[in-house]
Amino acid sequence: MKDALRFEPLAWSNVLTEMPAALRIASGDIVITETLDAAGVNARGEKKADRPNPMNGPIFVEGAEPGDALRVEILKIDPARDTGWTSAALSANVLDPEYARNLPPRDHVEWIIDRQASTVKLEKPLPGLENLILPYAPMIGCFGVAPSGGQAISTASSSNNGGNMDYRGFTVGCSVSFPVSVPGALFFLGDCHAAQGDGEIAGTGVETCCNVEVRLTVEKGRTIRWPRGETQDRIFTVGNARPLDQALQHATTEMVMWLKSDYGLSDAATAHLLGQAVRYEVGNVFNPAYTMVCSVAKKWLPPKL
Amino acid sequence: MKDALRFEPLAWSNVLTEMPAALRIASGDIVITETLDAAGVNARGEKKADRPNPMNGPIFVEGAEPGDALRVEILKIDPARDTGWTSAALSANVLDPEYARNLPPRDHVEWIIDRQASTVKLEKPLPGLENLILPYAPMIGCFGVAPSGGQAISTASSSNNGGNMDYRGFTVGCSVSFPVSVPGALFFLGDCHAAQGDGEIAGTGVETCCNVEVRLTVEKGRTIRWPRGETQDRIFTVGNARPLDQALQHATTEMVMWLKSDYGLSDAATAHLLGQAVRYEVGNVFNPAYTMVCSVAKKWLPPKL
Amino acid sequence: MKDALRFEPLAWSNVLTEMPAALRIASGDIVITETLDAAGVNARGEKKADRPNPMNGPIFVEGAEPGDALRVEILKIDPARDTGWTSAALSANVLDPEYARNLPPRDHVEWIIDRQASTVKLEKPLPGLENLILPYAPMIGCFGVAPSGGQAISTASSSNNGGNMDYRGFTVGCSVSFPVSVPGALFFLGDCHAAQGDGEIAGTGVETCCNVEVRLTVEKGRTIRWPRGETQDRIFTVGNARPLDQALQHATTEMVMWLKSDYGLSDAATAHLLGQAVRYEVGNVFNPAYTMVCSVAKKWLPPKL
Amino acid sequence: MKDALRFEPLAWSNVLTEMPAALRIASGDIVITETLDAAGVNARGEKKADRPNPMNGPIFVEGAEPGDALRVEILKIDPARDTGWTSAALSANVLDPEYARNLPPRDHVEWIIDRQASTVKLEKPLPGLENLILPYAPMIGCFGVAPSGGQAISTASSSNNGGNMDYRGFTVGCSVSFPVSVPGALFFLGDCHAAQGDGEIAGTGVETCCNVEVRLTVEKGRTIRWPRGETQDRIFTVGNARPLDQALQHATTEMVMWLKSDYGLSDAATAHLLGQAVRYEVGNVFNPAYTMVCSVAKKWLPPKL
Repeated sequence: MKDALRFEPLAWSNVLTEMPAALRIASGDIVITETLDAAGVNARGEKKADRPNPMNGPIFVEGAEPGDALRVEILKIDPARDTGWTSAALSANVLDPEYARNLPPRDHVEWIIDRQASTVKLEKPLPGLENLILPYAPMIGCFGVAPSGGQAISTASSSNNGGNMDYRGFTVGCSVSFPVSVPGALFFLGDCHAAQGDGEIAGTGVETCCNVEVRLTVEKGRTIRWPRGETQDRIFTVGNARPLDQALQHATTEMVMWLKSDYGLSDAATAHLLGQAVRYEVGNVFNPAYTMVCSVAKKWLPPKL
Repeated sequence: MKDALRFEPLAWSNVLTEMPAALRIASGDIVITETLDAAGVNARGEKKADRPNPMNGPIFVEGAEPGDALRVEILKIDPARDTGWTSAALSANVLDPEYARNLPPRDHVEWIIDRQASTVKLEKPLPGLENLILPYAPMIGCFGVAPSGGQAISTASSSNNGGNMDYRGFTVGCSVSFPVSVPGALFFLGDCHAAQGDGEIAGTGVETCCNVEVRLTVEKGRTIRWPRGETQDRIFTVGNARPLDQALQHATTEMVMWLKSDYGLSDAATAHLLGQAVRYEVGNVFNPAYTMVCSVAKKWLPPKL
Repeated sequence: MKDALRFEPLAWSNVLTEMPAALRIASGDIVITETLDAAGVNARGEKKADRPNPMNGPIFVEGAEPGDALRVEILKIDPARDTGWTSAALSANVLDPEYARNLPPRDHVEWIIDRQASTVKLEKPLPGLENLILPYAPMIGCFGVAPSGGQAISTASSSNNGGNMDYRGFTVGCSVSFPVSVPGALFFLGDCHAAQGDGEIAGTGVETCCNVEVRLTVEKGRTIRWPRGETQDRIFTVGNARPLDQALQHATTEMVMWLKSDYGLSDAATAHLLGQAVRYEVGNVFNPAYTMVCSVAKKWLPPKL
Repeated sequence: MKDALRFEPLAWSNVLTEMPAALRIASGDIVITETLDAAGVNARGEKKADRPNPMNGPIFVEGAEPGDALRVEILKIDPARDTGWTSAALSANVLDPEYARNLPPRDHVEWIIDRQASTVKLEKPLPGLENLILPYAPMIGCFGVAPSGGQAISTASSSNNGGNMDYRGFTVGCSVSFPVSVPGALFFLGDCHAAQGDGEIAGTGVETCCNVEVRLTVEKGRTIRWPRGETQDRIFTVGNARPLDQALQHATTEMVMWLKSDYGLSDAATAHLLGQAVRYEVGNVFNPAYTMVCSVAKKWLPPKL
């Protein structure tokens, strides 16, 4: 097995788009890179790039062509500093509209990441939160590939090509495949969170810098429309849109198409399987596009065709 | 402890509303009752009532007054027959709109409930589903109390007062509190499923008849706006509305209000806690009102005030 | 032609439902009745009933049976007093969620209805509104018939059976047909506005009492699913739901079904006609169910079958 | 007054983004240009560019800087050929989800544009549509400026910067201002329709090529967030998003901010004015972002500050 490649970017992007590659790798290579936080600050506290969610990349993966998929295995997400930050107010989006009259200011709040204990806690806990010591549960907030049709999609949002999905499940042990729309796929990565609830309803996770290790592999001829992934025990699809109903429609339709093409199920069979065994998880409900994840346990699947 | 009361209804209701009580009990009493399936068929295969989701009830709980809550502890949901049924098509609601062109007919499909093995499986498995043997995971699809303002809400839908929420988590070990709007609360119950995926996306769970045992307790002076519940390790709130975004807003706002009033958290503290630790689960995305559940692990909560 | 019947209710309802009739009339009769305002106050300033939107009715129309429609011709809506009132804040529903932080209190504001001049203006105009003298443009905010399945639907909301739609077009010269679900149809009426913008985005029109004259006619065997109506130059359908997208879906589907059954158009022909000639209008975007109206000019229609 | 500049593009764009200008003009210049149809075909029937909606442009307007607005006065939209085309099926988006099972194929349908008579009609009318002869009512389907933050937004969709809004009101006599995000504003234009119903619910208007004449003027220091426009008798704002509720929120909030900053109204005064006098119109309900227009008659406005 080849050594991992260390990728140290000199510039960062606030859009996912076709642009000159910062790194060129072979399919199957492992890349290690240190990400900036959502505000563009690095692990040394230096402001290196602008909001929102500056991305390391793009990485050109040799052999990737439109119509393929790019598989991203998340191997490690290690903390690169001892602090993270959040916003001090819930998003008005997730509350009854009139309740927004009560919301506090969106202040910046500091959290401590204890690498030894593998925990995350408020630097100055508010009353009642003195014992809120969360496990370090790192995730990649924003990653994906260049979109189709010459689009440049803000790292504040997401679409078919991935982007700022803010789903807790994008963590070590998970692999995700994105639809390739341009030669080399052009992979982008950043915006790690040390912890985050479902929905990213405060508008942030615990925003920090991480050392991320991923393996990037071209899946030749695997044509997909939305991100698909798997963990040890389930397969999943991702839809990004508003309202959440539409994100759910995209994710569910992608799952149905997957079950039909790869597992040979009929439309009726997908109704039986998904109707009684599907699981949904909420990615973000804060960004311009919301995110819904649709999954099925592998134990319920027939053998692949 | 008193013996459980067996409730054998002579009539069933297709709305939740203020109407003459079928049973009158004391707060804290345990009731056992056998439910009809969603089509009104009983455990002997006899059609006893009409669709949708005929309800056992209402049960008048002494002492319950508007402004109180009625706590429902789910103690048992045992199968009352060996069969269940589902629909053979996913709901067009949960798929990309144009995909509905591909949907198969909404045929009636039979499932076998194996009480010995505690499993649920298709009577005639379609190709690829030969090994789909799901655990018996019973839940109450539709339950709640009479709504406010003289409303009569169809058992096809749901609202503040509960109703047809089709949430997998309404199972043994869970307790749910509903806001009381009329004297006696007037509790209704029915529509059990032997298994169901998130979202009830085929429009049905495995529809069957169950023997359900619940304890009903008046919570004097506990004024709530939406259903609140708990399990051994978490507290949760329920929102019912369309789109799913609005259901999520109701559930989240109810959780914020609960954390403020009972646990003394400020609005900023609720942002820290929920922002980094909230969980969402999808109830139904099929009925006129969709259902979203918002929960927090008890381990993250401060002591109650 | 028979004289109009004057209907003076002794009680009012806050739900549309099957209940004992307050008046029984023949199909084709004209009824004149004075409505309360949305808060239950009459033209003499007396509080007679409770919020929301107390209804005159129900009126039993002889011969109406489930499967028929009840046609309501709006003949007159005359002011019954010289004042109306509104709320002093826009609904948070219609603004960007974070903007709700800026909203003023929902104070009660008085307006003057000048019957001579046929105008409506603020009693105490705020700076910049000194010359805001609107035409008296009366409309019925809430009307409809008893819903199906034993439901009782709050006069705060609306559904297939009509209800609180708050559409400016429900005015003199318009006729609306509602689907009959119970014997006699059971017609309800109230909540008149002296003026209102699209959407009822302050949560009120200029709420007042009116003398309303309507002709109620049974349309035997005309089975419809959502309200249908017409004016001198167009036909329209009404959908009530959230989000607005779903209200639009209901209204559009009802229009397609009407064009197919009564005008003999194919699905492709409805696409040509509606695609290039349809008009949409926004009823309320404030109530639990939003309202969208879909219309086509009569000049584009083929002869009825 | 200067002569109009004729702009004959050599290339077309399927995104609105910052890119090298095809033409550079002074603020206040008038430009005449012939557009391609939505499929990239020109007035001579030659396929010149790809779907969706290839744009003429961008045009760099001297003096335009971020924080300014670019005002576009629509002076002429003359037909450049005698045919247009539509789709033969309504969008599944605008129908009840299950109804999509009935939809016909999305065939290509030809229409005739009669320049003499100024009418638009089907080449081969389906039964019942023999007399459907619509007025030629041209509009610009897609236009706007480069978006902020390095985004490239597909001409299939729309956002703050305009784009594919498909609003019937974008016609001669209307002027629209877009928020400038890059030096020169970079204006794009295309996708004209000879006629279209509200919502573009067949997924197309009558797609054709037009000679469009616009005057482009920099409004220095006029900072806006969403498109704002005016006609002879009203001012309007535009919101683009899904669901339609969110588009309406954007448009309404932009109108409130306009009324406050330019007309000196308080938040309460905007509630009185808009609550009783606002009008909404539906742009597209087909594209990834839907469009809602919010307007007020000028006669109700106080003098500008």
